[in-house]
Amino acid sequence: MTTGFEEATPSLLRPRGVPETIAWRGGADGRLTILDQTLLPHAVRHVVCDTAEQVWEAIRSLRVRGAPLIGVAAAYGLCLGVRPRRDAARGALLADVRRVAEYLSSARPTAVNLLWALRRVQARAEQEPGAGCEVWRAMLAEAHAILHEDALACRRIGEHGAGLVPEGGGVLTHCNAGALATAGYGTALALLYVAHERGRRFRVFADETRPLLQGARLTAFELSAAGIDTTVLCDGAAAALLASGRVQMVVVGADRIAANGDTANKIGTYAVALAARAHGVPFYVAAPRSTFDPQAPTGAEIPIEQRDAREVREVAGGVVAAPGAGCFNPAFDVTPAGLVDGIVTEAGVLKPVTAANIAKFLAEQDLQRSA
Amino acid sequence: MTTGFEEATPSLLRPRGVPETIAWRGGADGRLTILDQTLLPHAVRHVVCDTAEQVWEAIRSLRVRGAPLIGVAAAYGLCLGVRPRRDAARGALLADVRRVAEYLSSARPTAVNLLWALRRVQARAEQEPGAGCEVWRAMLAEAHAILHEDALACRRIGEHGAGLVPEGGGVLTHCNAGALATAGYGTALALLYVAHERGRRFRVFADETRPLLQGARLTAFELSAAGIDTTVLCDGAAAALLASGRVQMVVVGADRIAANGDTANKIGTYAVALAARAHGVPFYVAAPRSTFDPQAPTGAEIPIEQRDAREVREVAGGVVAAPGAGCFNPAFDVTPAGLVDGIVTEAGVLKPVTAANIAKFLAEQDLQRSA
Repeated sequence: MTTGFEEATPSLLRPRGVPETIAWRGGADGRLTILDQTLLPHAVRHVVCDTAEQVWEAIRSLRVRGAPLIGVAAAYGLCLGVRPRRDAARGALLADVRRVAEYLSSARPTAVNLLWALRRVQARAEQEPGAGCEVWRAMLAEAHAILHEDALACRRIGEHGAGLVPEGGGVLTHCNAGALATAGYGTALALLYVAHERGRRFRVFADETRPLLQGARLTAFELSAAGIDTTVLCDGAAAALLASGRVQMVVVGADRIAANGDTANKIGTYAVALAARAHGVPFYVAAPRSTFDPQAPTGAEIPIEQRDAREVREVAGGVVAAPGAGCFNPAFDVTPAGLVDGIVTEAGVLKPVTAANIAKFLAEQDLQRSA
Repeated sequence: MTTGFEEATPSLLRPRGVPETIAWRGGADGRLTILDQTLLPHAVRHVVCDTAEQVWEAIRSLRVRGAPLIGVAAAYGLCLGVRPRRDAARGALLADVRRVAEYLSSARPTAVNLLWALRRVQARAEQEPGAGCEVWRAMLAEAHAILHEDALACRRIGEHGAGLVPEGGGVLTHCNAGALATAGYGTALALLYVAHERGRRFRVFADETRPLLQGARLTAFELSAAGIDTTVLCDGAAAALLASGRVQMVVVGADRIAANGDTANKIGTYAVALAARAHGVPFYVAAPRSTFDPQAPTGAEIPIEQRDAREVREVAGGVVAAPGAGCFNPAFDVTPAGLVDGIVTEAGVLKPVTAANIAKFLAEQDLQRSA
């Protein structure tokens, strides 16, 4: 039996010029290669993972980040975590799968794609009737499928949303929901890559996104690498930019979307949504099926990760904040559904953003997968 | 003849524990001492200025910053600039005053206090009937008066606004409108110092204020030095903080207030005002008379300083933004009067913020000064 995907590097579904974020090479005895995004834009270096612990660390320390990519990494992490015992009896292996999945789910609390991917691999293991060794191969095939589906979903998101990108206009984005956050074209930035491929001209404004500066470091890096005109600004300048009339569209990714459309995304997104609404600029979220969490009725039920005070206190390794002061450092905020003009998914633009429209989309997607 | 203020260090009008920002020592042959705020919070070091060029550089490079303090520094800078020719004929000295005032006004474009202070010293010079030497002494006396009036105005702002500070609550501020921005208690932070002196308990949240981090470096420094509980956050986290219910009041300073109440303040202020309004949290501006510009009918007429891209591209001396990307770096934004719940001035809380109320306040203040 083979997995059907001995190599998982869908290079045809990535924007040109942007380094590969994740790949499994070497079949059943392969290793997971992850782009270390903490070193960008200064160095393009990959780390190789052989264990679940290494994957956990890579997720926790943001070497691998971006909600969809975290899901892909976690799926492979689960395979790596149980591989040493893949020749065990089926029951023992399944118990192991549950334990490692539990462990990996603790790496970061907000991105639901992490849980979603782990559950998918675990479900596939439980459905596989064979011996441990066959269960394990099915798990790896599922991880490969998650990677390929992500790349495909990104491409489709880009195709569905490219028409929204204003010809000759400006697009504002926050954090990095790009090729670096996924196994493919990205989510928010997929719209821009596809519009760019189709010859549309526009300028992108990228919020730098403190504390970890993913906008300045990653979004500006990947868009520039792909030849798209990009301007970086401090997060606080976004409202003034919107007031200036230079932006005709805002598009961001998501870490988790509640059943009513409330959207958790990188801290600072909510302020951008408020300013966009104040100036009548449409605000779009781009995200694949795996980002939706029907278990969370509203944004209030989405757990928000609080990260280390040092991320605020220190900048580029140097302490900037006065000693004696505390720090408030939530990694995400929640933008109420009412401020979201549409959600661009792999199935089309979900609009208006209502619980009913979201339920319909989820039902259709889940039907398609089980078919 | 003496100036009446041989030493200008109003230490009784400063919060305890916060270093002196500006002082003139040595009478007519004295020198201007300025706290170098670019080194805070790591080092408390003063620079000494003997020429207008040194003062211009100190203002431009933000060694001295904060709208009211820039005005005080510029007034002394004008005195220093013409001192070498103070024994010239009256007409020659006055021509010199106009030239140096013009030069100093170019150091920074947005803070109207700079122009206001230069005009005051220049007007005093023109009104003084004596010889060059006497004109010069009158100018120095005017500079001293500006310093003392600023310290007094700050104290009064604090007294008028202290009652607005919520007992047991949270106060959010942006940038630094504190003792470090003035010759006295500050403007926005004066409310907090006076409330603290009166035994009110509250917690302050300070936006770090990218790109130059005046909130993290300066506001957290001076409030902590004065024993006030302070928490720093990234600018993008302010909306989430307001949504969390932990803030009952926002107070900021201003760099220029138009005749209709539109307020130019540090970039990022507008986003905070939008989020405060969205969550029903009152948003106050604290500023002395010198910040109002009746010549600007609305915020649209306020010139906004665009600063160097390096402030965005580099953080703490290291390049963070990807090469190839441009930068958008306005130093200020404009908060529409409609989002400002009140302006705390030395004469009381101006509320509601309307052109009529502002005109009345300005007429009363100007009457008082000329009386």
